Amino acid sequence: MSSLFPKYDVIVVGAGHAGSEAAGAAAEMGAKTLLITMNLDAIAKMSCNPAIGGVAKGQLVREIDALGGLTGVVADKSAVQFRMLNTSKGPAMWSPRCQSDRALYSNMMREELEKKENLHFRQDNVVDVLTTNDGKKATGVKTSTGQTFEAQSIILTTGTFGNGLMHIGETNFGGGRSGERASIGISAALEKLGFEVGRLKTGTPPRLDGRSIDYSKLEIQYGDSDPSPFSFMTEELPSKEEQLTCWIGFTNEEVHETLKTGFSRSPMFNGTIESTGPRYCPSIEDKINRFSDKNSHQLFLEPEGWDTYEMYLNGFSTSLPEDVQYNALRTIPGFEDAVMLRPGYAIEYDYFPPYQIRRSMETKITEGLFFAGQINGTTGYEEAACQGLMAGINAARKVKGEEEFILKRSEAYIGVLIDDLITKGTEEPYRMFTSRAEHRILLRQDNADLRLTELGHNIGLASTERFERYKTKKAAIDKLHDLIADYTVYPQKMDPMLEEQGTSKLSQPVKAKTLIPRPQLSIYNLLNADEELSAKTSAITDDKDVLDQVEIQIKYAGYIEKEFEMVEEMKKQEDTLIPDTLNYDQINSLSAEGKQKMDRIRPETLGQASRISGVSPSDISVLMVYLKN
Amino acid sequence: MSSLFPKYDVIVVGAGHAGSEAAGAAAEMGAKTLLITMNLDAIAKMSCNPAIGGVAKGQLVREIDALGGLTGVVADKSAVQFRMLNTSKGPAMWSPRCQSDRALYSNMMREELEKKENLHFRQDNVVDVLTTNDGKKATGVKTSTGQTFEAQSIILTTGTFGNGLMHIGETNFGGGRSGERASIGISAALEKLGFEVGRLKTGTPPRLDGRSIDYSKLEIQYGDSDPSPFSFMTEELPSKEEQLTCWIGFTNEEVHETLKTGFSRSPMFNGTIESTGPRYCPSIEDKINRFSDKNSHQLFLEPEGWDTYEMYLNGFSTSLPEDVQYNALRTIPGFEDAVMLRPGYAIEYDYFPPYQIRRSMETKITEGLFFAGQINGTTGYEEAACQGLMAGINAARKVKGEEEFILKRSEAYIGVLIDDLITKGTEEPYRMFTSRAEHRILLRQDNADLRLTELGHNIGLASTERFERYKTKKAAIDKLHDLIADYTVYPQKMDPMLEEQGTSKLSQPVKAKTLIPRPQLSIYNLLNADEELSAKTSAITDDKDVLDQVEIQIKYAGYIEKEFEMVEEMKKQEDTLIPDTLNYDQINSLSAEGKQKMDRIRPETLGQASRISGVSPSDISVLMVYLKN
Repeated sequence: MSSLFPKYDVIVVGAGHAGSEAAGAAAEMGAKTLLITMNLDAIAKMSCNPAIGGVAKGQLVREIDALGGLTGVVADKSAVQFRMLNTSKGPAMWSPRCQSDRALYSNMMREELEKKENLHFRQDNVVDVLTTNDGKKATGVKTSTGQTFEAQSIILTTGTFGNGLMHIGETNFGGGRSGERASIGISAALEKLGFEVGRLKTGTPPRLDGRSIDYSKLEIQYGDSDPSPFSFMTEELPSKEEQLTCWIGFTNEEVHETLKTGFSRSPMFNGTIESTGPRYCPSIEDKINRFSDKNSHQLFLEPEGWDTYEMYLNGFSTSLPEDVQYNALRTIPGFEDAVMLRPGYAIEYDYFPPYQIRRSMETKITEGLFFAGQINGTTGYEEAACQGLMAGINAARKVKGEEEFILKRSEAYIGVLIDDLITKGTEEPYRMFTSRAEHRILLRQDNADLRLTELGHNIGLASTERFERYKTKKAAIDKLHDLIADYTVYPQKMDPMLEEQGTSKLSQPVKAKTLIPRPQLSIYNLLNADEELSAKTSAITDDKDVLDQVEIQIKYAGYIEKEFEMVEEMKKQEDTLIPDTLNYDQINSLSAEGKQKMDRIRPETLGQASRISGVSPSDISVLMVYLKN
Repeated sequence: MSSLFPKYDVIVVGAGHAGSEAAGAAAEMGAKTLLITMNLDAIAKMSCNPAIGGVAKGQLVREIDALGGLTGVVADKSAVQFRMLNTSKGPAMWSPRCQSDRALYSNMMREELEKKENLHFRQDNVVDVLTTNDGKKATGVKTSTGQTFEAQSIILTTGTFGNGLMHIGETNFGGGRSGERASIGISAALEKLGFEVGRLKTGTPPRLDGRSIDYSKLEIQYGDSDPSPFSFMTEELPSKEEQLTCWIGFTNEEVHETLKTGFSRSPMFNGTIESTGPRYCPSIEDKINRFSDKNSHQLFLEPEGWDTYEMYLNGFSTSLPEDVQYNALRTIPGFEDAVMLRPGYAIEYDYFPPYQIRRSMETKITEGLFFAGQINGTTGYEEAACQGLMAGINAARKVKGEEEFILKRSEAYIGVLIDDLITKGTEEPYRMFTSRAEHRILLRQDNADLRLTELGHNIGLASTERFERYKTKKAAIDKLHDLIADYTVYPQKMDPMLEEQGTSKLSQPVKAKTLIPRPQLSIYNLLNADEELSAKTSAITDDKDVLDQVEIQIKYAGYIEKEFEMVEEMKKQEDTLIPDTLNYDQINSLSAEGKQKMDRIRPETLGQASRISGVSPSDISVLMVYLKN
């Protein structure tokens, strides 16, 4: 049956964090896009904790924003608290995080998406992927009401909805999220096309009635007094006083003992759930089980929004029977009278091991079919969102006949994430960490715009306004950098300040830039000490971000240059493409394991091949020689 | 298994328009209340059109508000347009209506409910009603996760979720609302208790992308320049310019012909749907079928909120196959390029014929079990909300051992609605109309506070602030009424004005109140003509509502007095209670039909008995004599 509706360029299935970015990007880039979701009132819903960002995740959001995505803008508009994490460490570790108003986040994302002229919405339940007869090319989707929609590119973002099965103790029931039904059909359709399907698990803690908590027994946690936005476009944020607070509590041995009474009825321990959950976001029962020597675990009580008393108990994710959840909860100091609004639960869902997709997020089996988000085995809103963005970009570019848009590991956390997924695969929900990025000194949250906004503008995603803002900032940075590099400071003016900061005085005039690397000093110390330098700086800019950026560039110049050299060294391998069709069996000198692994992963570059576990340096040398010929 | 949780006084199952009012009222009246809903993010969701009020429905909302309910307050806060309907008719017909921001309405209702100290929320799916072994007394509910919650009073508000089955053309699937799953279990539990279950149907039109409409082909409809609130507590509303507009369009014969091509595949016409839908809110296919001589039907295109382009096509409710919906839609002038976000659908759901409940909304079979909303066979948010309010009030009063709170047909539309339901039953979704209220001249939207706020305050529902405001208004009305009744106007001052208004001059001084009944005159004409009267009035009040009220009381004094006399006449019958246990078979002189009908309905008063179809005036006389002895 031919479709009733006009053909689209891109269809996005699912409107969570991946789907929203995918649809927004594709539409912004000019593709006629259809976003299909089971519930138009649940766009970009935060299924788990009401927060965006965090360590490495905050960097992802800054990158999404720098490219012209939506997550940062929406996070800034809907946040109730902002905190920059890791400020005691170097700038590569700084990570922005916010607490969000859950309902507002969803509404704001819908508003942002509604601004996209080329984007249409559709509430429906996709049950099948349509392809050419040989399954080699996607042509559209079919919904549960029997309608078909055609497009050149299809992006699947099924999240936890694909055959979702929820568990609370010995009870389990189909569902994609608390209160919402699962999506059945897509997985079977993909298996028929030849895809390998796997199963993962995640979980969420109980939601509490904030009025039932004794806050005097908890530690208060305020937002930052000088809050930093996610978006390079955001100009104003709520003050510390306007922001909401979080609370910190602790489990104790009584809590643990109470939880243990339910272990025999736990789906995690009695074999009901066999799939793997996120290692770094374990359930409370998992923490007690794995770290039996720890007699206390930290819990964060987070507000769900400006105007609700519903609270989220971060750190207490559980699928224990509800009576055990409840009784254990009430043994936590401060939670003696706690009232639960929703119990915690675990959810199992389908994913497709990500060796099956390319760097562009397009699947290898079926051309024009893209996967993004939890369907690729990741966990986290930010991990999902950046994949959605990349899939949206590449889906739109494919329609226009443009080449794939790829970010390298040296360019963005987004590049690290995708390369990790497709190269190493994942057998547990994949979460981003700074430690995964070997070039993390280059991939800072502060310079995401400098790294990516021009790229984003070139592909038609970052707006002209954003690009102009970036150019202005970039020019000011360069100018200020030159000034500081060139400007001579004298002992007379500097020494009192240097003494005050506890660092050695000058023996002779020096260039200003030689002082900044001293750990005790910031660029502001120099400006305060030298009114001429201060005046010259003011003439260039009064943008704190510019000053901070120049300070970082100068302070860490040594590390940064060294890192660039390493990137340069590896550039050749990263840029050497391996043809899709390469027959590894023909290359005799490859190791048997190397052949097998590379045939499965089908790396797109020599660099990627070198990162495959089981592929040896000599395999890479053999391959390099082979590809030269 | 005993419950894990503390016992509640009242449990409300379902958080739609009935459930929200029920939970709010019970909690406000001091009952420890638990509101259980399948989705805490979908409280008071408008499943159908984004509007509150309308003819007779607006009166219901004013009554709910006067008693201290929430619908009016929330409607005022979330409205995008206000219109007073029927202003060309007498004041008994005036009916307020607003267009609502669908998402805002839901959020605001949740906020209002969160303010109730005694109210707890719970996200869960109730599958069973717990009772004593004999089924005669409700003790709690059981959820799909196996948890039990105990309470003295249980209120069921299942809406369209009870075994909900959705239809689009030849496709049908379980669901309680677009994008949400059905609730399975409760109906079977009630049937086991001995309840008779029935099946009703309702439907909804497609939602459209507002950007795809050619508004130049539609008629614009503005809000009122002087908007009237629903709530007696609301002080400010958006101006005409700030309000959003609606649009009016028309079907034509081409549209009808296109729709007819789908009739053979229509679940309405091919026997798939056998249950009855709302007579006064028919589907477009029904309208074409039943009124085949009409070659055009009016459609209203209504905005879904402040910040969305989603539009609701009121008047185009349909369950035809989607291709037919789509093709027909695109033949409507102005809709040639219309994009559908969600197709229209019909939904069948369980209801319990309302002869099974008492005036208090409590079921006859199971003590402590209350029904409210669509479960009783009604349609409409307002009809549901007022039932919820009454069930909440009576559930709370039962817990406190207080007598039932009943509103008479002469006191409120709410009384008419409940009396109609329990006396006449309903085999199609029941909707309120002004014509259903025999005393409608008394039951005006303008005097809902005068009729009900004192009652609401006495039962602990209407706040002291509301009661004080009512008393101030009432005192001003009485004072102004006395002034106008007593004040003498003279030809000298009145005649120029009378001439200007086209009514006869005075031949001698008269009391001011004798002029007001003239159709050409308002109280304002008199005030403008007589500065002393104006000054004396200003000394009493500057509240327009007070002036309008006094004008209405004086203008329609004749009708109102006559109506009060009729109410008085019937008072005796209305106040004569019939014992629950009366054995009609024992009363020999009753007609056979009278016996049978009364035994089924078990009227609570002689008045109610007299309204049962099949009960004759002589049956009533017999019964009256019998009850006297």
